[in-house]
Amino acid sequence: MKIGILCIGDELLKGAVVNTNLSYMGQKLLELGLVPELSLEVPDRPGDVVRGLEFAMRCADFIITSGGLGPTADDLTKPSIAEYLGYPLELCNEAAEAIKARWTTLRNAHGWGQNAQHSLPFHFLNQAYVPKGCRVLMNRFGTAPGIYVATKEGDRFPGKKIVMLPGPPSELHPMFDDQVLPIVRENMDGKIFSRLFHISGVPESKVEESMQPVIAAFPELSVAYCAAPEFVKLFLSAPDSGILESASGRVRAIFADSLLSDGSRTVAEEVVRLLARAGHKLATAESCTGGMIASLITEIPGASEIYLGSVVPYANEVKTGALGVREATLRTAGAVSADCAAEMLDGVCGKLGAECGISVTGIAGPGGGTPEKPVGLVYIGVRYLDRVRIMENRFRGSREQIRARTAAVALNTLRRFILGLD
Amino acid sequence: MKIGILCIGDELLKGAVVNTNLSYMGQKLLELGLVPELSLEVPDRPGDVVRGLEFAMRCADFIITSGGLGPTADDLTKPSIAEYLGYPLELCNEAAEAIKARWTTLRNAHGWGQNAQHSLPFHFLNQAYVPKGCRVLMNRFGTAPGIYVATKEGDRFPGKKIVMLPGPPSELHPMFDDQVLPIVRENMDGKIFSRLFHISGVPESKVEESMQPVIAAFPELSVAYCAAPEFVKLFLSAPDSGILESASGRVRAIFADSLLSDGSRTVAEEVVRLLARAGHKLATAESCTGGMIASLITEIPGASEIYLGSVVPYANEVKTGALGVREATLRTAGAVSADCAAEMLDGVCGKLGAECGISVTGIAGPGGGTPEKPVGLVYIGVRYLDRVRIMENRFRGSREQIRARTAAVALNTLRRFILGLD
Repeated sequence: MKIGILCIGDELLKGAVVNTNLSYMGQKLLELGLVPELSLEVPDRPGDVVRGLEFAMRCADFIITSGGLGPTADDLTKPSIAEYLGYPLELCNEAAEAIKARWTTLRNAHGWGQNAQHSLPFHFLNQAYVPKGCRVLMNRFGTAPGIYVATKEGDRFPGKKIVMLPGPPSELHPMFDDQVLPIVRENMDGKIFSRLFHISGVPESKVEESMQPVIAAFPELSVAYCAAPEFVKLFLSAPDSGILESASGRVRAIFADSLLSDGSRTVAEEVVRLLARAGHKLATAESCTGGMIASLITEIPGASEIYLGSVVPYANEVKTGALGVREATLRTAGAVSADCAAEMLDGVCGKLGAECGISVTGIAGPGGGTPEKPVGLVYIGVRYLDRVRIMENRFRGSREQIRARTAAVALNTLRRFILGLD
Repeated sequence: MKIGILCIGDELLKGAVVNTNLSYMGQKLLELGLVPELSLEVPDRPGDVVRGLEFAMRCADFIITSGGLGPTADDLTKPSIAEYLGYPLELCNEAAEAIKARWTTLRNAHGWGQNAQHSLPFHFLNQAYVPKGCRVLMNRFGTAPGIYVATKEGDRFPGKKIVMLPGPPSELHPMFDDQVLPIVRENMDGKIFSRLFHISGVPESKVEESMQPVIAAFPELSVAYCAAPEFVKLFLSAPDSGILESASGRVRAIFADSLLSDGSRTVAEEVVRLLARAGHKLATAESCTGGMIASLITEIPGASEIYLGSVVPYANEVKTGALGVREATLRTAGAVSADCAAEMLDGVCGKLGAECGISVTGIAGPGGGTPEKPVGLVYIGVRYLDRVRIMENRFRGSREQIRARTAAVALNTLRRFILGLD
């Protein structure tokens, strides 16, 4: 099966929005061992939508579109595609009822009552008109239903599958997971068994090298890698569950300690989960990352179970005043030093009463570097119970990359401490 | 001129990387009043690159590609496109010298000396081979040069312009700004004058409504909007500088206080700039945003001039211990309350010695809501010198959206305080 993605919306081409729908769907498809043949972004104009669909159908037989299904005048995906495929639109009662029910809920939530001014805007029901013979994909998080069309023998374009989804990620994500992935699975040539591993603290080139014997041992295994700042994702897929299990066993043996638990999608999530299980509390003190590690932790639902909080001592007087870093340390070793990282770590764990902690002090650039302390020099302190480590790192890259790498190293070091690996 | 974008790389389709090159180029082109006709993402395979280019050339006459110019085996953009266009590759001496010089710098930085093991890998020089007759775009931040080809009468595809850029954003951004935008300008049909405004604190629908009289007054003016959580971008372009100036004057009069200064790309950047000018220091105390506001501020180079730091009092005992929130407040009003936000604000400004501050406490969800205090209820405190405001907000959306909206409101309120607007 060849998959094509068509994302509709001027905002994607104007750079107002980054196309996270593509990366979301790409990640989910990769877990099934599938990589789209292409993706397109086109403007909200019927001619462009159709031209994009036509090209996508030349390259692929299963097309997923996002965007342009809402109630407003620039939501043209559905009529454009239905006309192009030669299907008339007809009212779907179930979708109409769902739209009315959603409107009532919204009206009640706003306390609008029965005021006529707040009756259902007539164009909202446009969303309930769908191409004849399609399957309607219900939308629990918005008004626009999705659509699944499988063209038949005798149709203008036989043998194509087209799924149309609304553009807002909060609607697309659950619809993709709950309704589109099962359709993709149904349509896959033969069954495929797949598994995703997150490998933290190992460079991509080393992961690829370590996988060579596994690839040699299982010729039917398909292997893909993706590197992010905080880990490498490794995807295995195979036509047979036995092959997948054996290969997964080899992967677990090779990468052992470096694997995140199944279900953890970030190192921060893994740390939150491990600490919740251990019943220990975390505090952080970040200078150059300035709240980024705190933000990564607190974006995990349930972080409040394990996270006490953070001090961001950006100024030196906050390092001394709020964290108890000694004036002498700042004078002799400087704010960017192993000693300062150690005192920040002691300070934040002590003040907040945490059994584990992370401290960071460094030079993220672009300014502020000197020959002795260049941009990219970062000291990271990590404590878990009675174990403490202070690390000197020299990161390369932009301010953004240096900050991201610092957060990745700090969180992975803490993960390994909790697991008793270091 | 019709622009098409072609982004090459498996990682885009696998979801390992979000296509920020597209949004970057889209934003910059929009500042010239240009919106691409389409964008494509294709895998690192010569056939796919060529198929994508062919389609892009059917839709547009100025094509910009990103990715696939590096030294490794999967970097196939240049030979694929050169072959398709019918141009032989030839060595560009200037590019070869630049690659050698860059390698020497890298080797010296690593202290590798003259060790033969660290001589220039032979495949690096592949990057210096370019299509005959093209213009080479030098790359100051990486080894792969960019390429600009303008096809001529008698060529296989006459009248097309193709720019190829390397994929890493740290290389693409400066090359796009310094070298590609001037080429785009040269090729534009007639001169165009354009200006970008950032409007903070006004909903997009209201911006559009307010612009109607301006649009009516200047029929030759082109207007585009883009909404982000923290502001609406408004782009004006016109064929004549007089029209642009008159329309800009109207925009300044209409949106007055809500406009960021020219050159500020985020509200955080505007706040850093305004505080640096005023000579005042900022401290923040964030509960539900958990370091996000601190991170937005500290990602601005030079933030250390104005930012003292933050306390993230995620746990109640840190609210009382580190910030001096009263036990009685937590018991009676609760941690998510106007009183708690006010005490957090007092606490962080007092402890860190700041003249201005932001405090945040709320329920970002998805759990933790009650009928009285639902998910999305957020109290934001803002102080600037002797002015203080505590606001109750009820945000909708996901945990991520609630956090982003909270940060946007907090920073914009502080901006208005500094300017004496509220």
